[in-house]
Amino acid sequence: MRETKPEAKATAVACANIAFIKYWGRVDSALNIPANGSVSMNLDSLTTTTTVLLDEALPGDALVINDVPTEGRALERVSRHLDAIRDVAGKRWRARVVSRNSFPMGAGMASSAAAYAALTVAAAGAFGLSLDTAQLSALARLGSGSACRSIPAGFVEWQQGHDHASSVAYSIAPPEHWALCDCIAVVAAGEKAVSSLQGHTMAHTSPLYPLRVRTTGPRVRDCREAILARDMVRLGEVTEVDNFMLHAIAMTSEPPIYYWSDETRRVLDAVLTWREQGLPVYLTLDAGPNVHCLCEQAHAEQVTQRLKALPGVLDVLVARPGAGAHLIDEHLIE
Amino acid sequence: MRETKPEAKATAVACANIAFIKYWGRVDSALNIPANGSVSMNLDSLTTTTTVLLDEALPGDALVINDVPTEGRALERVSRHLDAIRDVAGKRWRARVVSRNSFPMGAGMASSAAAYAALTVAAAGAFGLSLDTAQLSALARLGSGSACRSIPAGFVEWQQGHDHASSVAYSIAPPEHWALCDCIAVVAAGEKAVSSLQGHTMAHTSPLYPLRVRTTGPRVRDCREAILARDMVRLGEVTEVDNFMLHAIAMTSEPPIYYWSDETRRVLDAVLTWREQGLPVYLTLDAGPNVHCLCEQAHAEQVTQRLKALPGVLDVLVARPGAGAHLIDEHLIE
Repeated sequence: MRETKPEAKATAVACANIAFIKYWGRVDSALNIPANGSVSMNLDSLTTTTTVLLDEALPGDALVINDVPTEGRALERVSRHLDAIRDVAGKRWRARVVSRNSFPMGAGMASSAAAYAALTVAAAGAFGLSLDTAQLSALARLGSGSACRSIPAGFVEWQQGHDHASSVAYSIAPPEHWALCDCIAVVAAGEKAVSSLQGHTMAHTSPLYPLRVRTTGPRVRDCREAILARDMVRLGEVTEVDNFMLHAIAMTSEPPIYYWSDETRRVLDAVLTWREQGLPVYLTLDAGPNVHCLCEQAHAEQVTQRLKALPGVLDVLVARPGAGAHLIDEHLIE
Repeated sequence: MRETKPEAKATAVACANIAFIKYWGRVDSALNIPANGSVSMNLDSLTTTTTVLLDEALPGDALVINDVPTEGRALERVSRHLDAIRDVAGKRWRARVVSRNSFPMGAGMASSAAAYAALTVAAAGAFGLSLDTAQLSALARLGSGSACRSIPAGFVEWQQGHDHASSVAYSIAPPEHWALCDCIAVVAAGEKAVSSLQGHTMAHTSPLYPLRVRTTGPRVRDCREAILARDMVRLGEVTEVDNFMLHAIAMTSEPPIYYWSDETRRVLDAVLTWREQGLPVYLTLDAGPNVHCLCEQAHAEQVTQRLKALPGVLDVLVARPGAGAHLIDEHLIE
């Protein structure tokens, strides 16, 4: 049996995140430098756990996701990301990557954010690199833009920056700052027809794109202040405006991108009606059909029960502010 | 020569208005009850002057706009509006209506708002009706929704209301409250391909429509407070967000409505660039290609000169907060 050094295996857990102010469009698609800053919250119950095992003797990188050996474009993308970390480490060792999600992939749940945050922290750990949160965030961003927001803890702002080192996320407030809940109405668990990657690439074809991008600054500020003040109404309002803008841009891109299903629209209508009736709940959607319903702890149970009673809602996942990406001692490979 | 009573002729002047929070979509298309409240400013240099001469012996209503005798749908719409005023007056007298605009019609300058505000005040005057601002505003709304905002003076809020009497506009602040300027880059003066009337009718076909309409309340409040505080940044930001939303809805209606020309997009880009360079100017567009650039008096000259230097800009009209619709003593018919 071939030996590997103790630090040549590491496992990390990272949360998915829901953006209040969205990342949509890039100024540098090689480095994933975004067109605007964004703000999000890690989702404690939606995690990816990833073990990276380094082995000089491997013919190439290998990838297993949810117990399924995976090749093709998914493996190529992981290999490219590992190359970036190998460059930092100054080592060429190949890796076996084993990853497991606690939530369905590809249904607009930012699975790539959790995946690339966990991969980055696990690979850096396996290579024995001493990197701070900002450096890990920058590395994660190379794998998937929004993954940089899953590195710090709790409530997170991704500062646009202008180069690899400066375009990083930091924690605005820790998870225990505010018992905000994201009640996610799952209306479809299948693969998306259009990935968010394509959405980013096509964003600039929308005539509305410059108007959103160049007016994002005040919304990022507003959102940050709302979080610090634990102001549900202010956070909800700025989140819904930015959500509108993202989907307006997607729908007016060439060709148009339409992430919503009929169920999405029905849930959206129901949530807006509940709010008019006095229930303080706000909504946002990522690049997928599921509806993220934001409310405070006191209303989470009611929101969840109401969502579950809607026709077309397959499941409701409830998430609270989650930890930053971190190493753990239990590995997915023995 | 046939005699008419002295009060059987009246002339009124009304301003066009630019909406900061837009009217887009209705809950009652017979009464023009809007789907949401809106906020606007009267534009002092964009006026319509209208004389209404009542004459029992006329075979029907007659209409002259900018010296051109006008029949067909324009006359029918004016006649329907006169019917509403005749109902209030309890008289069936037919009218000769002579109207003159100080600005090009049908290019998204809210010409129908000024026209129906002036027509309402002139006709009410000719019939000798004693109506207050709210009553005149409600009547004007029947002719063209946004005309109700051209009745009160200066900065105006149209409260959504729920019936004919309650869906009226009132003045938030008089014209002298704030020397706000609207520098209008005219990029086309021809007739619009799609009228705003069609836009209102199709608004509900946009998947984004419920999200805008049901989140307008806070923006109306924000806009009102920004005006009262003379806060250019706050007014500009909320105006641009609402503008984005209107055009996003138009572009995603079925069929899509696209009010912008290539020139529109170039002006829009230039204005956003100027602001990034430090010039405090904000933009909004009505249902047409012209770009309304909002700034304070101190920057109006610079904004105007820069706009004039842009290729594709045919003219720049500068307007300041205007008076409410009112009767004058000089008539367009002797």
